[in-house]
Amino acid sequence: MTEEWLLDRSSDTPLYQQIHDRIVGKIRSGAWPVGTKIPTQRELAERFGVNRSTIVYALDELSADGLIQSKVGQGTVVANNTWNVIASARTPDWGRYVAAGAHRPNQQLIQLINKAEENPAILRLGTGEPAPELLPARAMMLSLQNSAASLSLSYSEPRGSLRLRETLSRYLLAKGINAAPSSILIVSGGLQALQLIALGLLHDGSAILTESPSYLNSVHVVQSAGIRPCGVPMDKDGLLARRLGSMKRKTDAAMLYTIPAFHNPTGCLMPAARREELLHVCMHERLPVVEDDVYGDLWLDEEPPPPLKAMDREGLVLYIGSMSKSLGPGLRLGWIVAPVPVIDRLADIKMQTDYGTSALSQHAVAEWLETGRYDEHLSGLRAELRRRRGYMDTLLNRYMGSRAEWSLPQGGFYIWLRIRSPIQVRRLFDLALKEGILLHPGSVYDPGLDEPYLRLSYAYASFDQMELGIRRLAALISQLSGDNTQEL
Amino acid sequence: MTEEWLLDRSSDTPLYQQIHDRIVGKIRSGAWPVGTKIPTQRELAERFGVNRSTIVYALDELSADGLIQSKVGQGTVVANNTWNVIASARTPDWGRYVAAGAHRPNQQLIQLINKAEENPAILRLGTGEPAPELLPARAMMLSLQNSAASLSLSYSEPRGSLRLRETLSRYLLAKGINAAPSSILIVSGGLQALQLIALGLLHDGSAILTESPSYLNSVHVVQSAGIRPCGVPMDKDGLLARRLGSMKRKTDAAMLYTIPAFHNPTGCLMPAARREELLHVCMHERLPVVEDDVYGDLWLDEEPPPPLKAMDREGLVLYIGSMSKSLGPGLRLGWIVAPVPVIDRLADIKMQTDYGTSALSQHAVAEWLETGRYDEHLSGLRAELRRRRGYMDTLLNRYMGSRAEWSLPQGGFYIWLRIRSPIQVRRLFDLALKEGILLHPGSVYDPGLDEPYLRLSYAYASFDQMELGIRRLAALISQLSGDNTQEL
Ligand SMILES: Cc1ncc(COP(=O)(O)O)c(C=O)c1O
Ligand SMILES: Cc1ncc(COP(=O)(O)O)c(C=O)c1O
Repeated sequence: MTEEWLLDRSSDTPLYQQIHDRIVGKIRSGAWPVGTKIPTQRELAERFGVNRSTIVYALDELSADGLIQSKVGQGTVVANNTWNVIASARTPDWGRYVAAGAHRPNQQLIQLINKAEENPAILRLGTGEPAPELLPARAMMLSLQNSAASLSLSYSEPRGSLRLRETLSRYLLAKGINAAPSSILIVSGGLQALQLIALGLLHDGSAILTESPSYLNSVHVVQSAGIRPCGVPMDKDGLLARRLGSMKRKTDAAMLYTIPAFHNPTGCLMPAARREELLHVCMHERLPVVEDDVYGDLWLDEEPPPPLKAMDREGLVLYIGSMSKSLGPGLRLGWIVAPVPVIDRLADIKMQTDYGTSALSQHAVAEWLETGRYDEHLSGLRAELRRRRGYMDTLLNRYMGSRAEWSLPQGGFYIWLRIRSPIQVRRLFDLALKEGILLHPGSVYDPGLDEPYLRLSYAYASFDQMELGIRRLAALISQLSGDNTQEL
Repeated sequence: MTEEWLLDRSSDTPLYQQIHDRIVGKIRSGAWPVGTKIPTQRELAERFGVNRSTIVYALDELSADGLIQSKVGQGTVVANNTWNVIASARTPDWGRYVAAGAHRPNQQLIQLINKAEENPAILRLGTGEPAPELLPARAMMLSLQNSAASLSLSYSEPRGSLRLRETLSRYLLAKGINAAPSSILIVSGGLQALQLIALGLLHDGSAILTESPSYLNSVHVVQSAGIRPCGVPMDKDGLLARRLGSMKRKTDAAMLYTIPAFHNPTGCLMPAARREELLHVCMHERLPVVEDDVYGDLWLDEEPPPPLKAMDREGLVLYIGSMSKSLGPGLRLGWIVAPVPVIDRLADIKMQTDYGTSALSQHAVAEWLETGRYDEHLSGLRAELRRRRGYMDTLLNRYMGSRAEWSLPQGGFYIWLRIRSPIQVRRLFDLALKEGILLHPGSVYDPGLDEPYLRLSYAYASFDQMELGIRRLAALISQLSGDNTQEL
């Protein structure tokens, strides 16, 4: 018995399997090419020093793998095409793994939107971020060299850089929010804030009240964590606070999630009185509030009323902010303000999931807030958004006057467009996409919506693109409405 | 009935509750200060225009809240200390929320370690990152201005910046890994890679095989996703590949997670022959492999054998890399190489959880890889780590020669120290922490460990700190061993 056939009898791997593997090795290495007649069972049993039954086992597996076959008159030979067979038989069934994951896939429509956004030529009429030319990429890079000495590239502490938290504490004070650095957690954007809250504070099956429609319905992470969003009706001042009590009791909701300033997707701004009412009801119901204020800095006409958090003397409100909508989504930087035990819990989960937020981003944001560059940038951005809002309104009046209804928001990016004729928005989406125009159907934000809505954004498309896009949109809508009297 | 007492009878909020809220309003606003005698039930019923029973309901709630009390001979009055009562009664019970979250908290020991690392004065003998002075923070900042024009601050595509993926594709080719940009996903570090794999490909209750001990046991995200790590024994060449088959069958494991290069915590390097065997067994067992290569670039003596992924012709291996250990953890930047359906799935989840990785970090890493600065930095870092490894070895020999066993790793950061006397490592940890020295007990990496081990790292502490730390450590060990013949 030569070395070549020696089996490891102390191994946990059964002998038949060692033999199987040895023969696969011969085939893979090319030592036994296709068509090779392999030794008889008796010969193999002798060579390996095992019983015939062990050989039979091993050969059975090999033939189940498609690696060997018995040919009449030739005995057993190495099968054709073994390379393919080895390759495909051994590739894990990734489809099965993908299906097994506990996390649910994004809504198909949102996946389509993400995919379409990869195409740089697409005309985006609803995208929720400022156009690249409105973001200070170059200026940011150049500014960073001044403060190179204070950058650290080490892992940061669980709550994020102390310098940034101190800076944010001052920034928040200007909004009326009194937040010590220890009650601030730096996160990688508002979305991650939501994820941490869902994972850290809610259990599977929890209900969460929110505006109907709401950005929350487009955020799959909440549903993946087993959390049910329940829609609260809105009027022009935002969600109907007086409905919260009964809805809480009906759904046994664990929290309220709300976007009081320049709501996504309706653009709605909640006035001070409604904010007070809301907080009052939530206090009464002991219903904690997640206040998402990522658009708060983007007021266009006048400063919005103080955030709910500024009126919260009872630690009821978890406050979310982000640099995404104002300074740049690519920074992936946001924050949560909350009572310390909540911050501790969320910081622990943050450490478990990604060990913190990019030090470069933290450094850049601290720098821009401290030097006043952020404020300067904001006033430029506001002026630009004001122009764009006006232009989109002009276009809507020109092309869509009779076909749709909308009102202009006082800040943020969005116009919530109601189409008057009962068309299928999904059809509209598909047709527009064929023409290279990407839309955001209302159903993304409210799956139960029974009227045709679109979320438009004046933040992304250029003036020319807006003109082309709204004109084509109007044409498609009239086509779908079976309406031949196109305006234009 | 004046306006003041008017109830909203069309509201969903029950009348008794509206009354309750109205009275709370009176108390909060100061209109009814402490001691105020409140109107009788009959008077209230009249004012609000409701039945007495409704008033009784409302008053019951107010007195349960502690806001009012009945005093003999005085009727019902506003209670003392209402402000406190309102505040505490209305504060949500955050403790309950924190306990309800589906996500489990980090191991208590790991939380302690994270906490201790926030203290800048602590002497860290086991920390798994290069000392700040080994990271090129300043140089990175200064280098970025050259390429400011190509930075984008927009949301990135789901897989991450194409430029960075193309650059990584070339970088990986030098390791023998053939990865198209479409089979690369940019993530926020190796830990997030693990999280995405756990959420996207495994289901609750899945077992995952891994070295025993393993970094994986310190990573709570895996356990939070309901995944059980099962330890595979190791020898000096890494995990015993021949045990994988039977262990897979016994545990029904869905995957193998392995760190073949400069293993955390043992420092072990898996030689080429073991790698082949491992891949062979996993192919046979159809056991997908997660290869964690975050230390791969940190070889100190000679280049390690090619990664498993370089030998993987069957799409069996998911490969993880990161800039954390070589260029800077603060970048929060890593990558996964995998078959395209897996990348698509993980990219979708990544988009759901944080909308991508910092554009600044992606930009910086692309820049450093493309300009050769990364390679230059690496050779400097290797030289420094070599010196540190040598010095720690000298110190261990000097102070710990008879008390412990270790072998020097060929790369990475870690020395896996076995203490000869049967002391309680947790006691050692506590005593050391009191002296300002932070240790990493072996049990963090293997909860079932029954011998005293420490993970030492020569990457973080300065030479002076190493000298002080190892000397004190030796003294504490001999103290705990009841050994009075201290060496020194
Ligand atoms: C209301 C709202 N909250 C949060 C986010 C998340 O933004 P980011 O994670 O980029 O901060 C968005 C982005 O669309 C949003 O509209
Ligand atoms: C083996 C291993 N993998 C992954 C990581 C995670 O590193 P990061 O998320 O910083 O890339 C670490 C860090 O300690 C590690 O040791």
